[in-house]
Amino acid sequence: MTAQFQPSRRTFVKTVSAGLAAGIAAGGFHSSKVARGDQKKSLGVALVGLGSLSTKQIAPALQKTGNCHLAAIVTGTPEKEQLWASKYNIDRAHIYNYESFDKIVGDDAVDIVYVVLPNSMHEEYTIRAAKAGKHVFCEKPMANSVAECQRMIDACKSADRQLGIGYRCQFDPHHQKCIEMARSNEFGTMRLIDAGFGFKIGDPKQWRLNKQLAGGGALMDVGIYALQACRYLTGEEPISITAQETKTDATKFAQVDESITWTMKFPSGVMAQCATSYNFSGMNRFRAYSDNGFIQLDPAYSYTGIQGESSKGPIKFDQVDAFQLELQDFANCILENKKSRVSGEEGLKDLKVIEAIYESIRDGKTIVTS
Amino acid sequence: MTAQFQPSRRTFVKTVSAGLAAGIAAGGFHSSKVARGDQKKSLGVALVGLGSLSTKQIAPALQKTGNCHLAAIVTGTPEKEQLWASKYNIDRAHIYNYESFDKIVGDDAVDIVYVVLPNSMHEEYTIRAAKAGKHVFCEKPMANSVAECQRMIDACKSADRQLGIGYRCQFDPHHQKCIEMARSNEFGTMRLIDAGFGFKIGDPKQWRLNKQLAGGGALMDVGIYALQACRYLTGEEPISITAQETKTDATKFAQVDESITWTMKFPSGVMAQCATSYNFSGMNRFRAYSDNGFIQLDPAYSYTGIQGESSKGPIKFDQVDAFQLELQDFANCILENKKSRVSGEEGLKDLKVIEAIYESIRDGKTIVTS
Repeated sequence: MTAQFQPSRRTFVKTVSAGLAAGIAAGGFHSSKVARGDQKKSLGVALVGLGSLSTKQIAPALQKTGNCHLAAIVTGTPEKEQLWASKYNIDRAHIYNYESFDKIVGDDAVDIVYVVLPNSMHEEYTIRAAKAGKHVFCEKPMANSVAECQRMIDACKSADRQLGIGYRCQFDPHHQKCIEMARSNEFGTMRLIDAGFGFKIGDPKQWRLNKQLAGGGALMDVGIYALQACRYLTGEEPISITAQETKTDATKFAQVDESITWTMKFPSGVMAQCATSYNFSGMNRFRAYSDNGFIQLDPAYSYTGIQGESSKGPIKFDQVDAFQLELQDFANCILENKKSRVSGEEGLKDLKVIEAIYESIRDGKTIVTS
Repeated sequence: MTAQFQPSRRTFVKTVSAGLAAGIAAGGFHSSKVARGDQKKSLGVALVGLGSLSTKQIAPALQKTGNCHLAAIVTGTPEKEQLWASKYNIDRAHIYNYESFDKIVGDDAVDIVYVVLPNSMHEEYTIRAAKAGKHVFCEKPMANSVAECQRMIDACKSADRQLGIGYRCQFDPHHQKCIEMARSNEFGTMRLIDAGFGFKIGDPKQWRLNKQLAGGGALMDVGIYALQACRYLTGEEPISITAQETKTDATKFAQVDESITWTMKFPSGVMAQCATSYNFSGMNRFRAYSDNGFIQLDPAYSYTGIQGESSKGPIKFDQVDAFQLELQDFANCILENKKSRVSGEEGLKDLKVIEAIYESIRDGKTIVTS
């Protein structure tokens, strides 16, 4: 975002004094919750960025969540205002653009700001939302760097607000079952995970191919799913990372990574080999090999149609809406004052690995992370 | 092998003069074939090393080959002599041990020597067999180093004999169909192959865990299948290789590699990520992702039960005995004076990559091979 969208310090002080100050003055999380209406049964969500994900997945999910609901929208596209207002019955008072966004501080209908913007804007809007006294849910990747993630965490901590990241797979029962089997050593000691996620990206002009907006390419956008899978299956952080990049279309992928393969070693001895690409589809899986068996999801990361299998047979659950579940969980964490399992700290850990992957590619060597 | 098994130069000269000289004097491949009986309908095979593979796979296969047959055995275990002689009706005159092996030069019943010994002995017995005027078929890995492979190739070339390597998968119709689909771009440009083969190795005292005999561990023994798959699916040689080793049992795997993951880049842009292990089973597969689809075998490298699938549906063939087919093909190549597709040069190419993998592990860097 450009500087003109930033509230001046004067504006900030003023808006803070209008709404947030009460919570801060009340001295902490519990008190501010009470002071700010977190104990209502359904929390209001302001969606920031009304692109495809918000339109097709998040807004519909928010019709089913129960403990939270779509209460406000933030969009830079005037035509979308009326469309969304009528479709979701949103009053003018709860419609913001990027200039007016900070006024949300005074909007008691909004408890949670869900940031669904290009990656490079996550930091700014998370911090602005936190400063406006709102809890923040932010799409993955959390940001473009560890430093940005840290500032987001700090801002939410300072404002005594929760920060969650949109790692919806952690709310899908197939993934949850795999995590449970992996962590309980259902098939003995885990040895190797192979995980990959890629797709053939279309429009060469989209923000995902713009380094300034996206921070990176396939790795940032979908490789992160494979990385997450390795981390939540093992419950560990990698200790060494080796990565390679392959570029076959230097025009389309002039700014961002087209395809990356990387290997990670975990403290317990688990190896992981991962791949991501913006240049072919069909790779959407993980398989974890243990001494006496395997667990696998393939496809693993899709909105629908996840299929699982282990050495014991199919891993099968009814279709869920993982967006609905992640939002219900986040609202519940706020209402019950519990920390989200998909916290900002969790998002930062992924960025730490992503930075190591890019570093390994740049320097042509293995990066030892701890 | 220890020095006592080596024929002295004097012995060699004598045995050569007895049998091989005629062929050499006749001046070349075609003539020597005629002089040495290669035009008989079924070629005689001498099996060198009567371990599990020879017992359970190769000898039974040789009962079905038609154009070649089990004609002689070479074993260091006297008890096996009688057992095999009676089971396969082999006359005493065609039974050798490692001391008497070079006398095979005068055994007209033997056209092909099949070396099924520990890896470190492949070079010696290939060269001795070639010097005895026999064609040589040698189990994989061809040898422990590129230098050994080159000397084996040179010896067979000097003796005007064929050299083939036991890459049986290349004779399985599932693999052949995958190669055909891959090379014809059935699903568009190939982008990534992921391939792995491992098993939980048993007896800690076996030769496969002895560096001097085996040359290396999982990579040499089964990782080579995944490497082969990447090479024959692409039809290319890798241009860069990055590898990591993981060791969780430093006692059992004190001398050789337990688990290795490695990545290869091919000239056309295909990436490959591979894994091998002696410490867990169940990884026995490849999947090749192209622009519009995938091809996969899983399990891929087993003696029986190979299962294939592509984006178009199952890849299904009747069960074959790949040992039978590889031997039939090798005999046929000799009878028709054609070069084997699984030549010594092919075996050397794998060793070149294997050496690069070990070098990458040792030096902690990417090895650029061309």
